[in-house]
Amino acid sequence: ESQHIVLPGYTHMQVAQPVRLSHHILAHFWGFTRDMERFLAVNETARRLPLGSGAMAGVNYETSRQILIEELKFKEIYENSMDAVASRDHILEFLAAAGILMAHVSRIAEEIVLWNSVEFGYLTLPDSLTTGSSIMPQKKNPDLAELSRGKTGRIYGNLMNVLTNIKGLPFTYNRDLQEDRQPLLDTRKQCDMVLRSLTAMMSEAVFHEEKMKRSLEAGFATATDLADALVQKKGIPFREAHHIAGALTSACIKEGFTLSSAPIQVRNNISPHLADDSFYFEAVDMQKSADKKISEGGTALPRQKEQLARALKKMNELEQIPVHPVSL
Amino acid sequence: ESQHIVLPGYTHMQVAQPVRLSHHILAHFWGFTRDMERFLAVNETARRLPLGSGAMAGVNYETSRQILIEELKFKEIYENSMDAVASRDHILEFLAAAGILMAHVSRIAEEIVLWNSVEFGYLTLPDSLTTGSSIMPQKKNPDLAELSRGKTGRIYGNLMNVLTNIKGLPFTYNRDLQEDRQPLLDTRKQCDMVLRSLTAMMSEAVFHEEKMKRSLEAGFATATDLADALVQKKGIPFREAHHIAGALTSACIKEGFTLSSAPIQVRNNISPHLADDSFYFEAVDMQKSADKKISEGGTALPRQKEQLARALKKMNELEQIPVHPVSL
Amino acid sequence: ESQHIVLPGYTHMQVAQPVRLSHHILAHFWGFTRDMERFLAVNETARRLPLGSGAMAGVNYETSRQILIEELKFKEIYENSMDAVASRDHILEFLAAAGILMAHVSRIAEEIVLWNSVEFGYLTLPDSLTTGSSIMPQKKNPDLAELSRGKTGRIYGNLMNVLTNIKGLPFTYNRDLQEDRQPLLDTRKQCDMVLRSLTAMMSEAVFHEEKMKRSLEAGFATATDLADALVQKKGIPFREAHHIAGALTSACIKEGFTLSSAPIQVRNNISPHLADDSFYFEAVDMQKSADKKISEGGTALPRQKEQLARALKKMNELEQIPVHPVSL
Amino acid sequence: ESQHIVLPGYTHMQVAQPVRLSHHILAHFWGFTRDMERFLAVNETARRLPLGSGAMAGVNYETSRQILIEELKFKEIYENSMDAVASRDHILEFLAAAGILMAHVSRIAEEIVLWNSVEFGYLTLPDSLTTGSSIMPQKKNPDLAELSRGKTGRIYGNLMNVLTNIKGLPFTYNRDLQEDRQPLLDTRKQCDMVLRSLTAMMSEAVFHEEKMKRSLEAGFATATDLADALVQKKGIPFREAHHIAGALTSACIKEGFTLSSAPIQVRNNISPHLADDSFYFEAVDMQKSADKKISEGGTALPRQKEQLARALKKMNELEQIPVHPVSL
Repeated sequence: ESQHIVLPGYTHMQVAQPVRLSHHILAHFWGFTRDMERFLAVNETARRLPLGSGAMAGVNYETSRQILIEELKFKEIYENSMDAVASRDHILEFLAAAGILMAHVSRIAEEIVLWNSVEFGYLTLPDSLTTGSSIMPQKKNPDLAELSRGKTGRIYGNLMNVLTNIKGLPFTYNRDLQEDRQPLLDTRKQCDMVLRSLTAMMSEAVFHEEKMKRSLEAGFATATDLADALVQKKGIPFREAHHIAGALTSACIKEGFTLSSAPIQVRNNISPHLADDSFYFEAVDMQKSADKKISEGGTALPRQKEQLARALKKMNELEQIPVHPVSL
Repeated sequence: ESQHIVLPGYTHMQVAQPVRLSHHILAHFWGFTRDMERFLAVNETARRLPLGSGAMAGVNYETSRQILIEELKFKEIYENSMDAVASRDHILEFLAAAGILMAHVSRIAEEIVLWNSVEFGYLTLPDSLTTGSSIMPQKKNPDLAELSRGKTGRIYGNLMNVLTNIKGLPFTYNRDLQEDRQPLLDTRKQCDMVLRSLTAMMSEAVFHEEKMKRSLEAGFATATDLADALVQKKGIPFREAHHIAGALTSACIKEGFTLSSAPIQVRNNISPHLADDSFYFEAVDMQKSADKKISEGGTALPRQKEQLARALKKMNELEQIPVHPVSL
Repeated sequence: ESQHIVLPGYTHMQVAQPVRLSHHILAHFWGFTRDMERFLAVNETARRLPLGSGAMAGVNYETSRQILIEELKFKEIYENSMDAVASRDHILEFLAAAGILMAHVSRIAEEIVLWNSVEFGYLTLPDSLTTGSSIMPQKKNPDLAELSRGKTGRIYGNLMNVLTNIKGLPFTYNRDLQEDRQPLLDTRKQCDMVLRSLTAMMSEAVFHEEKMKRSLEAGFATATDLADALVQKKGIPFREAHHIAGALTSACIKEGFTLSSAPIQVRNNISPHLADDSFYFEAVDMQKSADKKISEGGTALPRQKEQLARALKKMNELEQIPVHPVSL
Repeated sequence: ESQHIVLPGYTHMQVAQPVRLSHHILAHFWGFTRDMERFLAVNETARRLPLGSGAMAGVNYETSRQILIEELKFKEIYENSMDAVASRDHILEFLAAAGILMAHVSRIAEEIVLWNSVEFGYLTLPDSLTTGSSIMPQKKNPDLAELSRGKTGRIYGNLMNVLTNIKGLPFTYNRDLQEDRQPLLDTRKQCDMVLRSLTAMMSEAVFHEEKMKRSLEAGFATATDLADALVQKKGIPFREAHHIAGALTSACIKEGFTLSSAPIQVRNNISPHLADDSFYFEAVDMQKSADKKISEGGTALPRQKEQLARALKKMNELEQIPVHPVSL
């Protein structure tokens, strides 16, 4: 259960603080819910009916576009026949939403690629989702993650394609607009593939806690927690507490220790407070560090459970929202 | 009053059918209402509070982010501290909305440039909005429209800038993200300028009905109406009616007439039905053509009044929607 | 012969000065020669042989890459096996050259669309290159020009695709790079189609001198020439000459004359110098105006002949340059 | 000396084979020489003189543009006055060259960010080029590398800006073109900053051989070399040799050994050939692996010296090429 695995949270690609794996995965989840919301909003935009606009001035007889809307399950009509013929807003909105989705995809794909490396070693993908060689069984190329990341440019390019197309086109229809089909259909197809790949990778990845622990230790991920504890439990002034934590970290680096392996003498040399073992090991413990982050949205276990419940609720809500037929 | 001016509607930059000037202007209006809706949606997206996320794991004490929301008039919190630090969705959404807005701007700007040419001559801009020369007083360079069109690329570029920036960035904060400030602020500033320019041009443009009429005539904008009338009023089969209208148009082109100046003999040579003057001039009249487009969203006068009323209502509704403080 | 047709040169989409049609077409020609030079430069870049780089470190036996170069008719080897595997410079250069080509294509396509309109009427495309309708035989939709213009975004998008792909990719090979195939091959195919369309349109277009003349007159294209002549031949100070030319133009606009149709009284009212018919009509003549632009690169007939000779020479030179096999 | 440091070469972000650090750095070097060549080519394109083109038709007196060229040290004139006014090729070429440069910059910047992480640990940047905190002295944020990577989007955006601007602009001058100034000047300024940052980082980075060795071992970087040696020195058929190397790697992974720490029994269990210590340790040695890559452009030491000599020669040649004054 990913709630009980703790790994480094990163800023600047540097180990910063311990976070739960569930917290990290949920961070991506929320981005994808916003993607769904954007696509649902596009769906609403595209439920505007252009039918009944004639060549672009309207037609010579009264039509009941209201009946058409009901028949075709659209939401409303284009109020203006020229707008109906000239507008490609729904295509642009779709491509922009897809571009933002792919930005998200590229970030998680980058993490999969990195985590699958020897240096991180945080996850292993099954053979069915990687390519390898018999001679180098340790080498598992995360092709699906790389291709997902690589397709980001394709979708950005499709967005730029249609934005450029529409730039400077006088009203109403120009044959240029026919060129919106290829990027539209291609975007849908590529995004489908990428999302299926991502789902497969996230479902089948095996995570390696010990490698995460190694990075947490090597990254001194609880140095700040130690300073905080010195302030809160030992009554040390903030500035001095920070100095002590920094000095210990420097000493550890110099002598090849981690915070959890630093011998009592090394700690005592920096400050006698650090020689209080029960205080010290409580302060630098990775799991306990995560549990101290009890603010709303934080990585403490109760907050994780709360967040997971909200995530499930959100997913249910989004799945309830109907997707309507649209005009392409 | 632009409802009483009739000009050509174009497809493929070819004169197609007569439309009211008000209809053409409203076509752009509806696009801009969708832009407003997109910006209002971005405003909602950006009302998510990141405060209280600490370095990215949350903070070591219980915060009341709910109180912060109320104080700062935000809508909700980021449910996940890592998402709060890593996400730039609201920036991307803003830039995408601005990109679509500028696509719209570039289309109306293109029309202003064309209509301001000697060949179209549909509008004149005041001296305050053009540059000219004393020696060529006929030459009024529509610089504001050109610059507005020219700034489209700048906003597209700003969108591409941040999309590229975010591509492949692992979570959470990377210093790259600081580079979102310049495109964000620049986009806002440029869009403000462009919209002010556009408002000034549309408010102060003087339209020239006679030039529009010239194009309508030169473009045989009522040839289709003539065919329709032959079907409806003379009982001619559809295919034959089309043939007659086409043959008359060809004859006019050959002999240098327009539909309204074609002498009775020329018409009679094509078909005796066309020699019925009251039928004929009713059928090819530009103003009357526009009034036949009585479908919902069409350019007939009653539909124009209806559409204008809806447009005013829409504008009022949009202006009522409050714009909230957001996190940049 | 397009050297004897004079049409308006435009700035700001405003009639500026008379130029020869050949001059206008050659203006596009020189841009396309630079495109050819760019593609030839890409060809050189792509003549670098990656073969013999192994997985990316080189191979375990001495290879004679020099022999390979000769066999495969390449120019040089990649000096570094990792660079050979990681670089996509030749693809990016190709796509950038194609982007600039399409920028050129879009400009000439825009002119074809405009010139094919009723308002300009400068050219007619044959039925084989347009779509029309039997009922509106005057309407010739310049679909090929529109599609050519519309494909510009597609090529820009392909460039943006690969630029985004490569952004932030660590060395050496990443599977993302496989995604360069589709934009590369698509770009080649689309550019081929577009250039064939353009060639067909330019070969078969029929130009209409009388419509060009109408715009020249309506645009008072020789107002500046008149001022210049007043200075040169009548000894009028520059500032006063400009004032006179401007005043005459204003009077003509007001009273509905062109420079060449302005009656002697109207001219005399502005300045007695303008009543000198032989002086006056020489000064405002469109063809003669073009012939006064005798500077190198100008639109005067001798300069046209000189330019055309240079253009043919350039084309011959470019066609002599061999295109070599390359590594994709 | 970076020629004597061996680190993993990567494909798919997976350890592949040992390469010299100098080889890796030179791989980037060759990309940057191509950037210089592109900028030098732009310099040639921009040495075309537009002066003397008047408003766009030429001027009314014979000018000696040849003298101007000599005075201003340009290379040639625009052969056509309209092309001279309308073309922005040199700007587009410059921005495209800058875009490709920034693609290169983003790749090396990505590597600096990764190598500066705890997980890789391949390099340390001096405090003057990183930001950190007293409490976490182990944390050195590689801000300059991140900002360099982050500015890639800005330059791509500037390119897209001007490409969009020019799309569909009829000849000759349109005020839109004035908008090329900001992206042009911004690109130059940003690229200057980024190149200075990169130079500083590469000059002052300290590399950590032991971390590179750790990754080489953990990544079984010589598994392929072992198979090759079995073929070459033990006469084992290719397929069987690969099977043996793969089986040993699997056994090592399972039992927690690297190739160089695998005990003789473990090796003997897979194949008696592997129990030949002098054969075995020669085959799996990282430094020796690098030296086996003796093909031209390979990472063997003699090839490195050869490559370095060529690189210095190339740099000298490029520095000899004069940069000429240009028309912006």
